[in-house]
Amino acid sequence: MAKLLTGKEVSAALADDLAPRIERLSAVGVTPTLAIVRVGVRPDDLSYERTACKRAEALGLAVRRFELPADAPQGELEAVIDAVNADDGIHGCLMFRPLPPSMDERAVCDRLAPEKDIDGIGSASLAGVFADTGEGFPPATARACLETLDFYGIPVKGKRVVVLGRSLVIGRPVAMMLLARHATVTLAHSRTEDAAAHTREADIVVCATGRARAFGPEYFAPGQTVLDVGINFDEAGNLCGDVDFDAVEPVLGPEGAITPVPRGLGGVTTTVTMAHVVQAAEAGQR
Amino acid sequence: MAKLLTGKEVSAALADDLAPRIERLSAVGVTPTLAIVRVGVRPDDLSYERTACKRAEALGLAVRRFELPADAPQGELEAVIDAVNADDGIHGCLMFRPLPPSMDERAVCDRLAPEKDIDGIGSASLAGVFADTGEGFPPATARACLETLDFYGIPVKGKRVVVLGRSLVIGRPVAMMLLARHATVTLAHSRTEDAAAHTREADIVVCATGRARAFGPEYFAPGQTVLDVGINFDEAGNLCGDVDFDAVEPVLGPEGAITPVPRGLGGVTTTVTMAHVVQAAEAGQR
Repeated sequence: MAKLLTGKEVSAALADDLAPRIERLSAVGVTPTLAIVRVGVRPDDLSYERTACKRAEALGLAVRRFELPADAPQGELEAVIDAVNADDGIHGCLMFRPLPPSMDERAVCDRLAPEKDIDGIGSASLAGVFADTGEGFPPATARACLETLDFYGIPVKGKRVVVLGRSLVIGRPVAMMLLARHATVTLAHSRTEDAAAHTREADIVVCATGRARAFGPEYFAPGQTVLDVGINFDEAGNLCGDVDFDAVEPVLGPEGAITPVPRGLGGVTTTVTMAHVVQAAEAGQR
Repeated sequence: MAKLLTGKEVSAALADDLAPRIERLSAVGVTPTLAIVRVGVRPDDLSYERTACKRAEALGLAVRRFELPADAPQGELEAVIDAVNADDGIHGCLMFRPLPPSMDERAVCDRLAPEKDIDGIGSASLAGVFADTGEGFPPATARACLETLDFYGIPVKGKRVVVLGRSLVIGRPVAMMLLARHATVTLAHSRTEDAAAHTREADIVVCATGRARAFGPEYFAPGQTVLDVGINFDEAGNLCGDVDFDAVEPVLGPEGAITPVPRGLGGVTTTVTMAHVVQAAEAGQR
Protein backbone atom coordinates (compact mmCIF):
# COMPACT_ATOMS: atom_id res chain seq x y z
CA MET A 1 0.00 0.00 0.00
CA ALA A 2 0.97 3.65 -0.41
CA LYS A 3 3.05 5.27 2.29
CA LEU A 4 0.90 7.13 4.80
CA LEU A 5 2.24 10.62 5.42
CA THR A 6 0.78 11.02 8.89
CA GLY A 7 1.15 14.37 10.57
CA LYS A 8 2.05 13.28 14.07
CA GLU A 9 5.69 12.57 13.26
CA VAL A 10 6.06 15.86 11.38
CA SER A 11 4.60 17.76 14.31
CA ALA A 12 6.89 15.92 16.73
CA ALA A 13 9.96 16.86 14.69
CA LEU A 14 8.85 20.48 14.57
CA ALA A 15 8.23 20.42 18.33
CA ASP A 16 11.73 18.99 18.89
CA ASP A 17 13.16 21.90 16.96
CA LEU A 18 11.05 24.41 18.91
CA ALA A 19 11.77 23.15 22.45
CA PRO A 20 15.30 24.57 22.87
CA ARG A 21 14.29 27.79 21.14
CA ILE A 22 11.37 28.28 23.53
CA GLU A 23 13.75 27.54 26.40
CA ARG A 24 16.20 30.20 25.21
CA LEU A 25 13.37 32.73 25.02
CA SER A 26 12.20 31.73 28.48
CA ALA A 27 15.70 32.29 29.82
CA VAL A 28 15.41 35.95 28.84
CA GLY A 29 11.92 36.24 30.28
CA VAL A 30 9.96 35.84 27.04
CA THR A 31 7.00 33.49 26.69
CA PRO A 32 6.03 33.26 23.01
CA THR A 33 2.44 34.43 22.99
CA LEU A 34 -0.30 33.90 20.46
CA ALA A 35 -3.33 36.17 20.24
CA ILE A 36 -6.48 34.52 18.95
CA VAL A 37 -9.05 36.94 17.61
CA ARG A 38 -12.54 35.57 17.05
CA VAL A 39 -15.70 37.35 15.91
CA GLY A 40 -18.80 35.32 16.72
CA VAL A 41 -19.04 31.70 17.86
CA ARG A 42 -18.86 29.46 14.79
CA PRO A 43 -18.43 25.85 15.92
CA ASP A 44 -15.48 25.28 13.52
CA ASP A 45 -13.65 28.26 14.98
CA LEU A 46 -14.31 27.18 18.56
CA SER A 47 -13.09 23.69 17.77
CA TYR A 48 -9.86 24.93 16.18
CA GLU A 49 -9.39 27.40 19.03
CA ARG A 50 -9.48 24.54 21.54
CA THR A 51 -6.97 22.57 19.48
CA ALA A 52 -4.67 25.58 19.16
CA CYS A 53 -4.82 26.34 22.89
CA LYS A 54 -3.97 22.74 23.75
CA ARG A 55 -1.05 22.66 21.33
CA ALA A 56 0.23 26.01 22.59
CA GLU A 57 0.08 24.82 26.19
CA ALA A 58 1.84 21.55 25.36
CA LEU A 59 4.69 23.46 23.72
CA GLY A 60 4.98 26.15 26.39
CA LEU A 61 3.39 29.03 24.52
CA ALA A 62 0.84 31.39 26.01
CA VAL A 63 -2.48 32.26 24.37
CA ARG A 64 -4.48 35.45 24.78
CA ARG A 65 -8.01 35.34 23.48
CA PHE A 66 -9.96 38.27 22.11
CA GLU A 67 -13.63 37.54 21.53
CA LEU A 68 -16.11 39.85 19.83
CA PRO A 69 -19.83 39.37 19.26
CA ALA A 70 -20.88 38.42 15.72
CA ASP A 71 -22.46 41.85 15.27
CA ALA A 72 -19.46 43.85 16.48
CA PRO A 73 -18.77 46.93 14.37
CA GLN A 74 -15.57 46.92 12.33
CA GLY A 75 -14.11 49.70 14.45
CA GLU A 76 -14.23 47.46 17.49
CA LEU A 77 -12.30 44.72 15.72
CA GLU A 78 -9.80 47.27 14.44
CA ALA A 79 -9.27 48.49 17.99
CA VAL A 80 -8.45 44.91 19.01
CA ILE A 81 -5.97 44.57 16.14
CA ASP A 82 -4.38 47.88 17.11
CA ALA A 83 -4.06 46.67 20.70
CA VAL A 84 -2.46 43.42 19.49
CA ASN A 85 -0.02 45.40 17.33
CA ALA A 86 0.92 47.68 20.21
CA ASP A 87 1.40 44.93 22.80
CA ASP A 88 5.04 43.79 22.98
CA GLY A 89 3.89 40.77 24.96
CA ILE A 90 2.01 39.38 21.94
CA HIS A 91 4.16 37.90 19.18
CA GLY A 92 1.69 36.47 16.72
CA CYS A 93 -1.99 36.80 15.92
CA LEU A 94 -4.46 34.30 14.48
CA MET A 95 -7.76 35.82 13.38
CA PHE A 96 -10.59 33.54 12.32
CA ARG A 97 -12.15 34.18 8.94
CA PRO A 98 -14.37 34.81 7.13
CA LEU A 99 -15.28 37.96 9.01
CA PRO A 100 -18.94 39.01 9.02
CA PRO A 101 -19.94 40.24 5.55
CA SER A 102 -20.52 43.76 6.88
CA MET A 103 -16.77 44.11 7.45
CA ASP A 104 -14.03 45.03 4.98
CA GLU A 105 -11.96 41.89 5.55
CA ARG A 106 -8.99 43.04 3.44
CA ALA A 107 -8.71 46.28 5.43
CA VAL A 108 -8.81 44.43 8.75
CA CYS A 109 -6.21 41.89 7.57
CA ASP A 110 -3.91 44.66 6.35
CA ARG A 111 -4.16 46.40 9.72
CA LEU A 112 -2.32 43.57 11.47
CA ALA A 113 1.41 44.29 11.79
CA PRO A 114 3.27 42.05 9.28
CA GLU A 115 5.70 40.86 11.98
CA LYS A 116 2.74 39.42 13.95
CA ASP A 117 0.88 38.07 10.91
CA ILE A 118 1.73 34.43 11.59
CA ASP A 119 -1.00 33.07 9.31
CA GLY A 120 -0.15 35.20 6.31
CA ILE A 121 -3.41 37.13 5.94
CA GLY A 122 -2.11 40.67 5.28
CA SER A 123 -1.02 42.11 1.94
CA ALA A 124 2.58 42.35 3.12
CA SER A 125 2.60 38.61 3.85
CA LEU A 126 0.89 37.88 0.55
CA ALA A 127 3.52 39.93 -1.27
CA GLY A 128 6.11 38.09 0.81
CA VAL A 129 5.01 34.69 -0.41
CA PHE A 130 4.45 35.90 -3.99
CA ALA A 131 7.63 37.88 -4.34
CA ASP A 132 10.00 36.59 -1.65
CA THR A 133 10.17 40.04 -0.06
CA GLY A 134 10.84 38.42 3.31
CA GLU A 135 7.97 40.27 4.99
CA GLY A 136 5.34 38.56 7.09
CA PHE A 137 4.67 34.82 7.10
CA PRO A 138 3.19 32.35 4.62
CA PRO A 139 -0.18 30.84 5.52
CA ALA A 140 0.42 28.04 8.03
CA THR A 141 -1.39 25.44 5.90
CA ALA A 142 0.86 26.16 2.93
CA ARG A 143 3.98 25.81 5.03
CA ALA A 144 2.58 22.61 6.56
CA CYS A 145 2.58 21.08 3.07
CA LEU A 146 6.26 21.91 2.58
CA GLU A 147 7.21 20.69 6.06
CA THR A 148 5.47 17.38 5.41
CA LEU A 149 7.22 16.86 2.08
CA ASP A 150 10.57 17.71 3.68
CA PHE A 151 10.05 15.50 6.71
CA TYR A 152 9.27 12.47 4.54
CA GLY A 153 12.16 13.23 2.18
CA ILE A 154 9.99 13.79 -0.89
CA PRO A 155 11.93 15.90 -3.40
CA VAL A 156 10.35 19.01 -4.88
CA LYS A 157 13.06 20.52 -7.09
CA GLY A 158 12.37 19.96 -10.78
CA LYS A 159 9.23 17.94 -10.01
CA ARG A 160 5.83 18.41 -11.60
CA VAL A 161 3.28 19.63 -9.10
CA VAL A 162 -0.41 20.19 -9.74
CA VAL A 163 -2.29 22.28 -7.19
CA LEU A 164 -6.07 21.79 -7.30
CA GLY A 165 -7.69 24.93 -5.95
CA ARG A 166 -6.54 28.54 -6.13
CA SER A 167 -7.55 30.07 -2.81
CA LEU A 168 -5.40 32.66 -1.06
CA VAL A 169 -5.34 30.54 2.07
CA ILE A 170 -3.68 27.59 0.42
CA GLY A 171 -3.79 27.10 -3.39
CA ARG A 172 -1.94 30.17 -4.58
CA PRO A 173 0.52 30.44 -1.67
CA VAL A 174 1.52 26.77 -1.73
CA ALA A 175 2.00 27.05 -5.51
CA MET A 176 4.38 29.98 -4.99
CA MET A 177 6.29 28.21 -2.22
CA LEU A 178 6.73 25.11 -4.38
CA LEU A 179 7.78 27.32 -7.31
CA ALA A 180 10.40 28.97 -5.09
CA ARG A 181 11.70 25.47 -4.40
CA HIS A 182 12.05 24.96 -8.17
CA ALA A 183 9.04 22.76 -8.84
CA THR A 184 7.16 23.15 -12.11
CA VAL A 185 3.75 24.15 -10.84
CA THR A 186 0.32 23.99 -12.46
CA LEU A 187 -2.62 25.76 -10.85
CA ALA A 188 -5.87 23.98 -11.70
CA HIS A 189 -9.35 24.82 -10.44
CA SER A 190 -13.06 24.54 -10.98
CA ARG A 191 -12.82 26.02 -14.50
CA THR A 192 -10.04 23.64 -15.56
CA GLU A 193 -11.09 21.32 -18.38
CA ASP A 194 -10.15 17.71 -17.64
CA ALA A 195 -8.22 18.38 -14.44
CA ALA A 196 -7.56 14.63 -14.17
CA ALA A 197 -5.44 14.80 -17.34
CA HIS A 198 -3.21 17.28 -15.50
CA THR A 199 -3.04 15.53 -12.16
CA ARG A 200 -2.29 12.09 -13.64
CA GLU A 201 0.95 13.49 -15.13
CA ALA A 202 2.15 15.04 -11.85
CA ASP A 203 4.74 13.86 -9.35
CA ILE A 204 2.96 15.65 -6.51
CA VAL A 205 -0.73 16.62 -6.32
CA VAL A 206 -1.98 19.11 -3.73
CA CYS A 207 -5.76 18.87 -3.25
CA ALA A 208 -7.12 22.07 -1.80
CA THR A 209 -10.65 22.69 -2.99
CA GLY A 210 -12.62 22.01 0.19
CA ARG A 211 -14.97 19.59 -1.58
CA ALA A 212 -15.53 16.31 0.27
CA ARG A 213 -14.01 13.31 -1.54
CA ALA A 214 -14.10 15.22 -4.84
CA PHE A 215 -11.07 13.45 -6.30
CA GLY A 216 -11.40 9.78 -7.10
CA PRO A 217 -8.98 7.22 -8.59
CA GLU A 218 -9.24 8.63 -12.11
CA TYR A 219 -7.21 11.66 -10.96
CA PHE A 220 -4.16 9.71 -9.84
CA ALA A 221 -1.39 7.40 -10.98
CA PRO A 222 1.08 4.98 -9.36
CA GLY A 223 4.03 6.50 -7.53
CA GLN A 224 2.50 9.91 -6.92
CA THR A 225 2.57 11.88 -3.70
CA VAL A 226 -0.84 13.27 -2.73
CA LEU A 227 -1.26 16.05 -0.17
CA ASP A 228 -4.88 16.33 0.93
CA VAL A 229 -5.50 19.73 2.51
CA GLY A 230 -9.28 19.30 2.71
CA ILE A 231 -11.01 19.25 6.07
CA ASN A 232 -14.61 18.44 5.16
CA PHE A 233 -17.54 16.57 6.58
CA ASP A 234 -19.36 14.05 4.43
CA GLU A 235 -23.13 13.56 4.39
CA ALA A 236 -22.88 11.16 7.33
CA GLY A 237 -21.01 13.79 9.33
CA ASN A 238 -17.64 12.07 9.09
CA LEU A 239 -14.46 14.08 8.74
CA CYS A 240 -12.91 13.55 5.32
CA GLY A 241 -10.51 15.14 2.86
CA ASP A 242 -10.81 16.31 -0.74
CA VAL A 243 -9.54 12.91 -1.83
CA ASP A 244 -11.65 9.75 -1.89
CA PHE A 245 -8.98 8.06 0.20
CA ASP A 246 -10.21 4.46 0.13
CA ALA A 247 -10.48 4.46 -3.64
CA VAL A 248 -7.32 6.46 -4.34
CA GLU A 249 -4.80 4.92 -1.95
CA PRO A 250 -4.58 1.59 -3.87
CA VAL A 251 -3.99 3.44 -7.16
CA LEU A 252 -0.88 5.14 -5.80
CA GLY A 253 0.85 1.80 -5.22
CA PRO A 254 3.81 1.02 -2.95
CA GLU A 255 5.90 3.85 -4.42
CA GLY A 256 3.10 6.35 -3.81
CA ALA A 257 2.36 8.40 -0.70
CA ILE A 258 -0.67 10.21 0.69
CA THR A 259 -1.65 12.30 3.69
CA PRO A 260 -4.70 10.87 5.48
CA VAL A 261 -7.64 12.96 6.77
CA PRO A 262 -7.83 13.07 9.73
CA ARG A 263 -4.28 12.49 11.08
CA GLY A 264 -2.65 14.34 8.18
CA LEU A 265 -1.87 17.99 7.47
CA GLY A 266 -4.32 19.52 9.97
CA GLY A 267 -2.16 18.84 13.01
CA VAL A 268 0.97 19.96 11.19
CA THR A 269 -0.73 23.27 10.41
CA THR A 270 -1.40 23.85 14.10
CA THR A 271 2.24 23.17 14.97
CA VAL A 272 3.45 25.40 12.14
CA THR A 273 1.27 28.18 13.57
CA MET A 274 3.09 27.80 16.89
CA ALA A 275 6.46 27.68 15.11
CA HIS A 276 5.61 31.00 13.48
CA VAL A 277 4.80 32.51 16.88
CA VAL A 278 8.18 31.35 18.21
CA GLN A 279 9.90 32.73 15.12
CA ALA A 280 8.12 36.06 15.65
CA ALA A 281 9.16 36.11 19.32
CA GLU A 282 12.76 35.44 18.31
CA ALA A 283 12.67 38.20 15.71
CA GLY A 284 11.37 40.55 18.42
CA GLN A 285 14.52 39.87 20.46
CA ARG A 286 16.87 41.07 17.73
CA MET B 1 1.18 31.12 -42.06
CA ALA B 2 0.38 31.83 -38.42
CA LYS B 3 -1.49 35.00 -37.57
CA LEU B 4 0.88 37.82 -36.62
CA LEU B 5 -0.26 39.49 -33.42
CA THR B 6 1.37 42.84 -34.11
CA GLY B 7 1.27 45.44 -31.37
CA LYS B 8 0.46 48.53 -33.42
CA GLU B 9 -3.24 47.74 -33.71
CA VAL B 10 -3.51 46.91 -29.99
CA SER B 11 -1.82 50.19 -29.08
CA ALA B 12 -4.09 52.10 -31.44
CA ALA B 13 -7.20 50.60 -29.85
CA LEU B 14 -5.89 51.47 -26.39
CA ALA B 15 -5.12 55.00 -27.57
CA ASP B 16 -8.66 55.34 -28.96
CA ASP B 17 -10.01 54.42 -25.56
CA LEU B 18 -7.67 56.87 -23.82
CA ALA B 19 -8.30 59.93 -26.02
CA PRO B 20 -11.74 60.95 -24.66
CA ARG B 21 -10.62 60.17 -21.12
CA ILE B 22 -7.57 62.41 -21.46
CA GLU B 23 -9.86 65.09 -22.91
CA ARG B 24 -12.21 64.87 -19.93
CA LEU B 25 -9.26 65.26 -17.57
CA SER B 26 -7.98 68.19 -19.59
CA ALA B 27 -11.41 69.85 -19.31
CA VAL B 28 -10.95 69.96 -15.53
CA GLY B 29 -7.38 71.21 -15.83
CA VAL B 30 -5.60 67.91 -15.32
CA THR B 31 -2.81 66.70 -17.60
CA PRO B 32 -2.01 63.08 -16.78
CA THR B 33 1.64 63.19 -15.80
CA LEU B 34 4.24 60.44 -15.68
CA ALA B 35 7.36 60.74 -13.56
CA ILE B 36 10.36 58.84 -14.90
CA VAL B 37 13.01 58.13 -12.29
CA ARG B 38 16.39 57.00 -13.57
CA VAL B 39 19.60 56.26 -11.67
CA GLY B 40 22.62 56.29 -13.98
CA VAL B 41 22.70 56.32 -17.78
CA ARG B 42 22.26 52.73 -19.00
CA PRO B 43 21.69 52.78 -22.78
CA ASP B 44 18.62 50.48 -22.48
CA ASP B 45 17.01 52.83 -19.98
CA LEU B 46 17.75 55.91 -22.10
CA SER B 47 16.31 54.19 -25.14
CA TYR B 48 13.09 53.23 -23.36
CA GLU B 49 12.88 56.69 -21.82
CA ARG B 50 12.91 58.27 -25.30
CA THR B 51 10.22 55.84 -26.47
CA ALA B 52 8.07 56.55 -23.42
CA CYS B 53 8.43 60.32 -23.79
CA LYS B 54 7.42 60.16 -27.45
CA ARG B 55 4.40 57.99 -26.70
CA ALA B 56 3.36 60.23 -23.81
CA GLU B 57 3.59 63.31 -26.01
CA ALA B 58 1.62 61.68 -28.82
CA LEU B 59 -1.18 60.83 -26.41
CA GLY B 60 -1.20 64.19 -24.62
CA LEU B 61 0.46 63.14 -21.36
CA ALA B 62 3.19 65.09 -19.65
CA VAL B 63 6.47 63.58 -18.47
CA ARG B 64 8.67 64.79 -15.63
CA ARG B 65 12.14 63.30 -15.51
CA PHE B 66 14.17 62.75 -12.37
CA GLU B 67 17.78 61.79 -13.06
CA LEU B 68 20.29 60.73 -10.45
CA PRO B 69 23.96 59.82 -10.90
CA ALA B 70 24.81 56.10 -10.80
CA ASP B 71 26.56 56.59 -7.46
CA ALA B 72 23.72 58.50 -5.79
CA PRO B 73 23.11 57.40 -2.19
CA GLN B 74 19.83 55.61 -1.47
CA GLY B 75 18.63 58.55 0.63
CA GLU B 76 18.75 60.81 -2.41
CA LEU B 77 16.60 58.41 -4.43
CA GLU B 78 14.19 58.07 -1.52
CA ALA B 79 13.88 61.85 -1.38
CA VAL B 80 12.91 61.81 -5.06
CA ILE B 81 10.29 59.12 -4.45
CA ASP B 82 8.93 61.12 -1.51
CA ALA B 83 8.69 64.20 -3.72
CA VAL B 84 6.86 62.17 -6.39
CA ASN B 85 4.46 60.84 -3.77
CA ALA B 86 3.77 64.31 -2.39
CA ASP B 87 3.26 66.00 -5.76
CA ASP B 88 -0.43 66.07 -6.76
CA GLY B 89 0.64 67.00 -10.28
CA ILE B 90 2.30 63.60 -10.78
CA HIS B 91 -0.05 60.66 -11.30
CA GLY B 92 2.23 57.74 -12.04
CA CYS B 93 5.88 56.86 -11.65
CA LEU B 94 8.14 54.62 -13.71
CA MET B 95 11.48 53.84 -12.07
CA PHE B 96 14.14 52.01 -14.06
CA ARG B 97 15.57 48.88 -12.52
CA PRO B 98 17.73 47.21 -11.47
CA LEU B 99 18.91 49.88 -9.06
CA PRO B 100 22.62 49.99 -8.19
CA PRO B 101 23.55 46.96 -6.04
CA SER B 102 24.37 49.23 -3.08
CA MET B 103 20.67 50.08 -2.77
CA ASP B 104 17.87 48.15 -1.07
CA GLU B 105 15.67 47.88 -4.14
CA ARG B 106 12.68 46.37 -2.30
CA ALA B 107 12.65 49.23 0.22
CA VAL B 108 12.78 51.85 -2.52
CA CYS B 109 10.01 50.14 -4.51
CA ASP B 110 7.82 49.90 -1.41
CA ARG B 111 8.31 53.62 -0.76
CA LEU B 112 6.39 54.57 -3.89
CA ALA B 113 2.71 55.30 -3.16
CA PRO B 114 0.63 52.37 -4.48
CA GLU B 115 -1.73 54.73 -6.30
CA LYS B 116 1.22 56.01 -8.37
CA ASP B 117 2.88 52.61 -8.84
CA ILE B 118 1.86 52.27 -12.49
CA ASP B 119 4.41 49.55 -13.24
CA GLY B 120 3.55 47.33 -10.30
CA ILE B 121 6.89 47.36 -8.47
CA GLY B 122 5.76 47.82 -4.84
CA SER B 123 4.61 45.12 -2.44
CA ALA B 124 1.08 46.52 -2.42
CA SER B 125 0.87 46.13 -6.20
CA LEU B 126 2.41 42.66 -5.99
CA ALA B 127 -0.18 41.66 -3.40
CA GLY B 128 -2.78 43.27 -5.66
CA VAL B 129 -1.93 41.04 -8.59
CA PHE B 130 -1.45 37.94 -6.41
CA ALA B 131 -4.53 38.39 -4.29
CA ASP B 132 -6.83 40.71 -6.23
CA THR B 133 -6.75 43.23 -3.40
CA GLY B 134 -7.36 46.04 -5.90
CA GLU B 135 -4.34 48.02 -4.73
CA GLY B 136 -1.72 49.38 -7.09
CA PHE B 137 -1.26 48.25 -10.69
CA PRO B 138 -0.02 45.08 -12.37
CA PRO B 139 3.30 45.31 -14.21
CA ALA B 140 2.64 46.94 -17.60
CA THR B 141 4.21 44.04 -19.53
CA ALA B 142 1.88 41.53 -17.89
CA ARG B 143 -1.17 43.62 -18.71
CA ALA B 144 0.12 44.07 -22.28
CA CYS B 145 -0.12 40.28 -22.72
CA LEU B 146 -3.77 40.28 -21.63
CA GLU B 147 -4.63 43.32 -23.77
CA THR B 148 -3.10 41.63 -26.82
CA LEU B 149 -5.02 38.39 -26.27
CA ASP B 150 -8.23 40.36 -25.78
CA PHE B 151 -7.71 42.58 -28.81
CA TYR B 152 -7.20 39.60 -31.09
CA GLY B 153 -10.13 37.72 -29.56
CA ILE B 154 -8.08 34.82 -28.22
CA PRO B 155 -9.99 33.16 -25.39
CA VAL B 156 -8.30 32.54 -22.05
CA LYS B 157 -11.01 31.02 -19.85
CA GLY B 158 -10.53 27.29 -19.35
CA LYS B 159 -7.46 27.27 -21.61
CA ARG B 160 -4.12 25.69 -20.85
CA VAL B 161 -1.41 28.30 -20.51
CA VAL B 162 2.28 27.64 -19.94
CA VAL B 163 4.39 30.57 -18.78
CA LEU B 164 8.12 30.12 -19.37
CA GLY B 165 9.96 32.23 -16.82
CA ARG B 166 9.03 33.16 -13.28
CA SER B 167 10.26 36.73 -12.84
CA LEU B 168 8.33 39.26 -10.78
CA VAL B 169 8.27 41.65 -13.71
CA ILE B 170 6.37 39.29 -15.98
CA GLY B 171 6.29 35.52 -15.36
CA ARG B 172 4.59 35.37 -11.98
CA PRO B 173 2.27 38.37 -12.49
CA VAL B 174 1.06 37.30 -15.92
CA ALA B 175 0.44 33.80 -14.53
CA MET B 176 -1.75 35.27 -11.78
CA MET B 177 -3.64 37.52 -14.21
CA LEU B 178 -4.34 34.58 -16.51
CA LEU B 179 -5.39 32.49 -13.51
CA ALA B 180 -7.81 35.22 -12.47
CA ARG B 181 -9.26 34.94 -15.97
CA HIS B 182 -9.81 31.22 -15.34
CA ALA B 183 -6.96 29.76 -17.36
CA THR B 184 -5.20 26.65 -16.11
CA VAL B 185 -1.68 27.96 -15.66
CA THR B 186 1.65 26.17 -15.49
CA LEU B 187 4.75 28.06 -14.40
CA ALA B 188 7.85 26.55 -15.98
CA HIS B 189 11.42 27.79 -15.69
CA SER B 190 15.12 27.00 -15.95
CA ARG B 191 14.80 24.08 -13.51
CA THR B 192 11.84 22.53 -15.33
CA GLU B 193 12.65 19.12 -16.78
CA ASP B 194 11.54 18.81 -20.40
CA ALA B 195 9.78 22.18 -20.62
CA ALA B 196 8.92 21.38 -24.25
CA ALA B 197 6.68 18.54 -23.09
CA HIS B 198 4.67 21.12 -21.15
CA THR B 199 4.55 23.82 -23.80
CA ARG B 200 3.55 21.46 -26.62
CA GLU B 201 0.34 20.63 -24.72
CA ALA B 202 -0.64 24.28 -24.13
CA ASP B 203 -3.18 26.45 -25.90
CA ILE B 204 -1.18 29.59 -25.08
CA VAL B 205 2.55 29.85 -24.37
CA VAL B 206 4.04 32.98 -22.80
CA CYS B 207 7.82 33.16 -23.33
CA ALA B 208 9.43 35.41 -20.75
CA THR B 209 12.93 34.23 -19.94
CA GLY B 210 14.99 36.96 -21.59
CA ARG B 211 17.12 34.44 -23.49
CA ALA B 212 17.57 35.23 -27.18
CA ARG B 213 15.82 32.72 -29.48
CA ALA B 214 15.89 30.11 -26.70
CA PHE B 215 12.69 28.37 -27.83
CA GLY B 216 12.77 26.52 -31.12
CA PRO B 217 10.16 24.50 -33.02
CA GLU B 218 10.36 21.52 -30.65
CA TYR B 219 8.54 23.62 -28.01
CA PHE B 220 5.44 24.29 -30.08
CA ALA B 221 2.50 22.68 -31.84
CA PRO B 222 -0.01 23.68 -34.52
CA GLY B 223 -2.80 26.03 -33.50
CA GLN B 224 -1.07 27.52 -30.47
CA THR B 225 -0.89 31.18 -29.53
CA VAL B 226 2.62 32.31 -28.61
CA LEU B 227 3.31 35.55 -26.74
CA ASP B 228 6.97 36.47 -26.94
CA VAL B 229 7.84 38.92 -24.18
CA GLY B 230 11.60 38.79 -24.79
CA ILE B 231 13.48 41.88 -25.91
CA ASN B 232 16.98 40.58 -26.56
CA PHE B 233 19.87 41.22 -28.89
CA ASP B 234 21.45 38.33 -30.73
CA GLU B 235 25.19 37.95 -31.34
CA ALA B 236 24.95 40.06 -34.47
CA GLY B 237 23.31 42.86 -32.47
CA ASN B 238 19.84 42.31 -33.92
CA LEU B 239 16.75 42.73 -31.77
CA CYS B 240 15.01 39.40 -31.21
CA GLY B 241 12.61 37.65 -28.85
CA ASP B 242 12.83 34.54 -26.70
CA VAL B 243 11.33 32.57 -29.58
CA ASP B 244 13.25 31.49 -32.66
CA PHE B 245 10.59 33.14 -34.79
CA ASP B 246 11.61 31.96 -38.26
CA ALA B 247 11.72 28.33 -37.16
CA VAL B 248 8.64 28.42 -34.92
CA GLU B 249 6.14 30.40 -36.99
CA PRO B 250 5.65 27.61 -39.60
CA VAL B 251 5.03 25.04 -36.84
CA LEU B 252 2.06 27.02 -35.51
CA GLY B 253 0.20 26.70 -38.79
CA PRO B 254 -2.69 28.81 -40.08
CA GLU B 255 -4.67 28.33 -36.85
CA GLY B 256 -1.73 29.50 -34.75
CA ALA B 257 -0.75 33.02 -33.74
CA ILE B 258 2.43 34.69 -32.54
CA THR B 259 3.64 38.12 -31.46
CA PRO B 260 6.69 39.23 -33.47
CA VAL B 261 9.78 40.91 -31.96
CA PRO B 262 10.12 43.75 -32.75
CA ARG B 263 6.60 45.08 -33.53
CA GLY B 264 4.94 42.94 -30.86
CA LEU B 265 4.35 43.36 -27.14
CA GLY B 266 6.99 46.05 -26.51
CA GLY B 267 4.93 48.87 -27.96
CA VAL B 268 1.78 47.64 -26.22
CA THR B 269 3.64 47.75 -22.90
CA THR B 270 4.50 51.41 -23.46
CA THR B 271 0.87 52.25 -24.21
CA VAL B 272 -0.35 50.26 -21.19
CA THR B 273 2.05 52.30 -19.05
CA MET B 274 0.36 55.46 -20.31
CA ALA B 275 -3.08 53.93 -19.77
CA HIS B 276 -2.12 53.27 -16.15
CA VAL B 277 -1.10 56.93 -15.74
CA VAL B 278 -4.47 58.05 -17.10
CA GLN B 279 -6.24 55.60 -14.81
CA ALA B 280 -4.26 56.97 -11.85
CA ALA B 281 -5.13 60.53 -12.85
CA GLU B 282 -8.82 59.60 -13.05
CA ALA B 283 -8.67 57.91 -9.65
CA GLY B 284 -7.13 61.10 -8.25
CA GLN B 285 -10.24 63.04 -9.35
CA ARG B 286 -12.61 60.88 -7.31
